[in-house]
Amino acid sequence: MTFPALGLTLDLRGMRIPASYRERLQPAFDRAFAEMRALEAGAIANPDENRMVGHYWLRNPDLAPSEEIRHEIRQTVQDVKSFARAVHEGAVRGEEGPFRHLLVIGIGGSALGPQMVAHALGDPRYDRLRPWFFDNTDPDGMERVLGQLGPELGRTLCVVISKSGGTRETANGMYRAQVAYAHKGLHFARHVVAITQRGSRLDREAEECGWLARFPMWDWVGGRTSETSAVGLLPAALQGINIDTLLLGARSCDVITRSDNVTSNPAAALALAWHFAGDGRGAKDMVVLPYKDRLELLAKYLQQLVMESLGKELDRNGRVVHQGLTVFGNKGTTDQHSYVQQLRDGLPNFFVTLIEVLRHQDGPPVLMDTGVGAGDYLHSFCSGTARAIAEKGRGVIRIYVETLSPFTIGCLIALYERAVGLYASLININAYHQPGVEAGKKASEKIIGLENRLLDQFRSHRGWPWTVEDLAARVGATQELEEVRELCWMLSQNPASGIQLLPVREHVYFRAI
Amino acid sequence: MTFPALGLTLDLRGMRIPASYRERLQPAFDRAFAEMRALEAGAIANPDENRMVGHYWLRNPDLAPSEEIRHEIRQTVQDVKSFARAVHEGAVRGEEGPFRHLLVIGIGGSALGPQMVAHALGDPRYDRLRPWFFDNTDPDGMERVLGQLGPELGRTLCVVISKSGGTRETANGMYRAQVAYAHKGLHFARHVVAITQRGSRLDREAEECGWLARFPMWDWVGGRTSETSAVGLLPAALQGINIDTLLLGARSCDVITRSDNVTSNPAAALALAWHFAGDGRGAKDMVVLPYKDRLELLAKYLQQLVMESLGKELDRNGRVVHQGLTVFGNKGTTDQHSYVQQLRDGLPNFFVTLIEVLRHQDGPPVLMDTGVGAGDYLHSFCSGTARAIAEKGRGVIRIYVETLSPFTIGCLIALYERAVGLYASLININAYHQPGVEAGKKASEKIIGLENRLLDQFRSHRGWPWTVEDLAARVGATQELEEVRELCWMLSQNPASGIQLLPVREHVYFRAI
Repeated sequence: MTFPALGLTLDLRGMRIPASYRERLQPAFDRAFAEMRALEAGAIANPDENRMVGHYWLRNPDLAPSEEIRHEIRQTVQDVKSFARAVHEGAVRGEEGPFRHLLVIGIGGSALGPQMVAHALGDPRYDRLRPWFFDNTDPDGMERVLGQLGPELGRTLCVVISKSGGTRETANGMYRAQVAYAHKGLHFARHVVAITQRGSRLDREAEECGWLARFPMWDWVGGRTSETSAVGLLPAALQGINIDTLLLGARSCDVITRSDNVTSNPAAALALAWHFAGDGRGAKDMVVLPYKDRLELLAKYLQQLVMESLGKELDRNGRVVHQGLTVFGNKGTTDQHSYVQQLRDGLPNFFVTLIEVLRHQDGPPVLMDTGVGAGDYLHSFCSGTARAIAEKGRGVIRIYVETLSPFTIGCLIALYERAVGLYASLININAYHQPGVEAGKKASEKIIGLENRLLDQFRSHRGWPWTVEDLAARVGATQELEEVRELCWMLSQNPASGIQLLPVREHVYFRAI
Repeated sequence: MTFPALGLTLDLRGMRIPASYRERLQPAFDRAFAEMRALEAGAIANPDENRMVGHYWLRNPDLAPSEEIRHEIRQTVQDVKSFARAVHEGAVRGEEGPFRHLLVIGIGGSALGPQMVAHALGDPRYDRLRPWFFDNTDPDGMERVLGQLGPELGRTLCVVISKSGGTRETANGMYRAQVAYAHKGLHFARHVVAITQRGSRLDREAEECGWLARFPMWDWVGGRTSETSAVGLLPAALQGINIDTLLLGARSCDVITRSDNVTSNPAAALALAWHFAGDGRGAKDMVVLPYKDRLELLAKYLQQLVMESLGKELDRNGRVVHQGLTVFGNKGTTDQHSYVQQLRDGLPNFFVTLIEVLRHQDGPPVLMDTGVGAGDYLHSFCSGTARAIAEKGRGVIRIYVETLSPFTIGCLIALYERAVGLYASLININAYHQPGVEAGKKASEKIIGLENRLLDQFRSHRGWPWTVEDLAARVGATQELEEVRELCWMLSQNPASGIQLLPVREHVYFRAI
C-alpha cells in the first residue's frame, strides 16, 4: 500500500489478515466512515461532553462548520507565525536580550506532542530557540531545568499550555517559573505567553498581567489531538520548524485517509489490523519501534493518543466493555537489544509496528569498514527483525516513510489520529472523552487538603508528639488513617517541613519543631 | 514491609494476594532460594551457555567462588576509581585539554544501565564529565551528538562497551567516532577506553592501538546485569557519581534479599506478586511508574532486565512455554495524563508498580500558592492514583524509597535483579541466556551481504536499468525478491548511493549513475 503523495508505504502482509475478516467488518467500517464524515462536518462526536471534535479542521479550515471557526483557525496560524517571526527577529525579546530558549510548561496533551516534534525535527545546532520542558510537578526536575537555564533566564520565553487553565502540574510549573524570574529581578509577564481556552483562569491571568501574547485552545480540540493547534504549532515555530509543511503533511494524509475503501485507506487499514490483532478487544499490545533516533518519542506520543482514546469502561450504549489498546516502544535497533528476545521467543501477547525512514541522513554517509553506511545496518536490522518475528507467527506491521521532515511528522500524526477515530467507531466507544482521569485528581485534591489540615494541627501545637491515630482524630480523618500515616512519613523525610519522626520504644510519634 | 537499613518500603496490599497462594508456591520458593544459593556459590546457573552467573559477587567479592575472580573484581573497582581520579585531576587528558565530556558507545546492556544511572544521579550543573551516548546505528543520531560535541571532541573521552567486542551497532559507533577524531587531526587512541572481555576483537584492537585503558567484562556477567561491573561503574565514576555508595546499596539489598522467608524478603515478595498477577504466565503487563523525573529511564532499564530474562520459548526441561513479563512505563504524574485513563477504566490487562521518593529535593522547597510544595502534589497524585486504580480492582504495588542517591539506585537494581532471578526459578526458565536475538542478527547480516552484492552488480554495469527480478537473478537471490526490492528502494532514497529509481510506464527500473 504505497502513497506517493505522502511518501508513505504501509505493509500489512505480516499481519496475515484473511479477506473474510475484512469483509465481515465491512458494515462496521461503513458506519465508521459515515461517523467520521459526520464528525468532520461538525456533529457532536463527543456526546458525553456535548462537544464537536475538530482537529481535522486545524489543517484545512475550509472544512470547519462555521465561518467563525474557519476564521479563528486561520487567524491563529497567522498569529503563531507572526509571533515566532517577531521573536526570531528580536522585535519581541526578553529583558536581557533576544530570546534563545523556550520553556514549555504543560503536561500530557500539552507536552507530549511538542516534545515528540521538538525531538524529531529540531537540532541543537540549528534551533532558533532551544526547547526545555516542565512536564511534571517534580520540584527536583524543575530545579534541574532552571539550573541549566541559569543565567539565560532573561532570554528564555515561557509557553504555558493548559486548555482548562486549571491543570495543577502546569499551575505549579508556572508558579515555579514565576518565582525564578522574580528572584532575578525579571518580570515574568515579559517572558511568557499562554495557550488556553478563552476566559479560562490562565487566560484571565495572562490578560490581567499583560503577558506577551495569548493563543486560543478550543473546546472542540482535545489535548491528545492538539498537535496541529497552537499547542503544537507555537513551540515548533519558535524552535524554527516549518509549521506550514507540518500542516500540509497532516492535510495531505487527511485527504488520503478520507477514502471509504479499507484497502486503499491507510488509517482504515491500520484500524483493521489492530482489530484483527486483538480481536476488537485489545487482546494484543501494540509495540511501536521506529528505527530512527529522532522518532524515539513517537511511541510515547502514540501511547497517549491511543490509550487515552480507546481505554474506556463503557461503550456508547453504556455497556461495560473495558476496552483499550496498550502501546509501548522506544526505538530500533536499540530495543532489539532489550526485549526482542521476548518478542521472538516469549509471550505471543503483542503485534509490532516497525517504522523505517528510508533516507538515512542528509549529505553523504560515512562508510563503515564493511563498505556500507551505518544507516544500511539500521535497515538490515529492521528488515531482519521483521522477518525473525514474523517467522514465529507474531503480527508485524511495517511503515516506511521516505524522509523525516515536518511533512512526514504531520502525516504520521494525522494517520494515527484517524486510525484511532475509525477503530473507536468499530468497537463503538467514544474516543474523545477521558472520564477515568477525574478520580485520581479528586483523590489527590483530598490528600492536599488533608495535608494542609495536618500542617495546621502540627503548627498550632509545636513540639507536641502526635500518634497517627490521635492526629487523624483531631483533623477529622479517622477514615483516612493510611493517608495520614503516609503524609506524616513523607513530611518527616523532608526536613524543610519541620515535622520530625520520633520513635519511642514500640511507638511512633510525629511532632513539629 | 519496611527495611530501615535500605530506606525502602514495599507495600503489596494493593495486590490482594491470598495467603493460600503464597503457601501453594512455598515449595517452588524453597527451590528458588536453593537455586539462588547455588548460583551465588558459583554453580553453572546458565547451563545453555555453560556459564556461572556472578553479578551478585560484583558488590561483595568475598562471595565469589575463586580467589582469581575475587581479585579481578576488587582490582577492577580500584582501577575504575583510579582512572576516574586521573581523569578528574587532569593527569589523563585529551589532546586539547582535560576531559569534559564522556561519550559512551554501547547498546542494550551496555547502554541502558549507564543511561538510567546518569539520568538519575547526574546533574548537568555539577557533572565532572558530561555524558553522551551512541546507542544505535542511526547515522543521523550520531551526527546529532557529534554536532553538539563539536569543538569539544579533543576534550571528550570515549568509552566503548561491548562484552563480545563484536556488537555491530557498537562497532559502527566506534568507527564513526574514530572518523570524527581523525577529521580533526586528533588521535582516537588518546581519547578512548574499552570495556570488553579479555581477548575479544575489541580488546585486541584497544591493546594494539594503545588505547588509554582497558577494563574487563567476564563471561559470568550478563549485559543486562552488568550495571555493577565496569560497564556501569566506569561511566558513573567518570561523571562524578559515588560508585562505592552505589555498590553498598546493591550489597545491602543483596543481604536483605538473601532471606529464605517470602514475607520478609522484598525480592521474593515482588516475585510472588508478579506470579500472582499473571498466574505465572505473564498474563498481565507490569506498568512501572516512578514519581520522579530522575527515574524516568528506570522502566526502560527494567524492560530489558525483565523481558530479556523472562521472555523465553522453552523452560529448563525443554518444554515450549512462551514465557515472559511485559514491562513499560515512564514517570508520574506525567503518564497519568497519558494512559491512566486506560489503566483505570479500560482493559484489566496489567498491574502497576508506583515508586515514590519521599524526600522531594535537597534544600527548602518553593511553596506553591496553596501553601505546600510541588513535591507534596507529586505525593498526592501518586497516592490518589494508587487509590483510584486499586478501587477498580487492578493490582497495585507501591515502593517507597526515602531519598534518591547512589545507594538507592544500587538497591533498586539489586532488588529487581534478584526478583527476576527468583521468578525465573518459580516458572522454571533460564533467566540468563537470550537465544532469541540471534535470528534477527543473522537475518540482518544476510541483508548486508545481499546489499553488497547488489552494489557490486550496479557498479559493474553503470547506467544499466535493472528490474528487481533481473537483479535478483544476477546476484543469485531469486528466493529473496522482497529483500532485493526493499534494498533497491532504500538505496534510491539515499542519493549518495548513486542508485536511481527509473519508472517507465508500468515498470520500475533501478540503475547506478
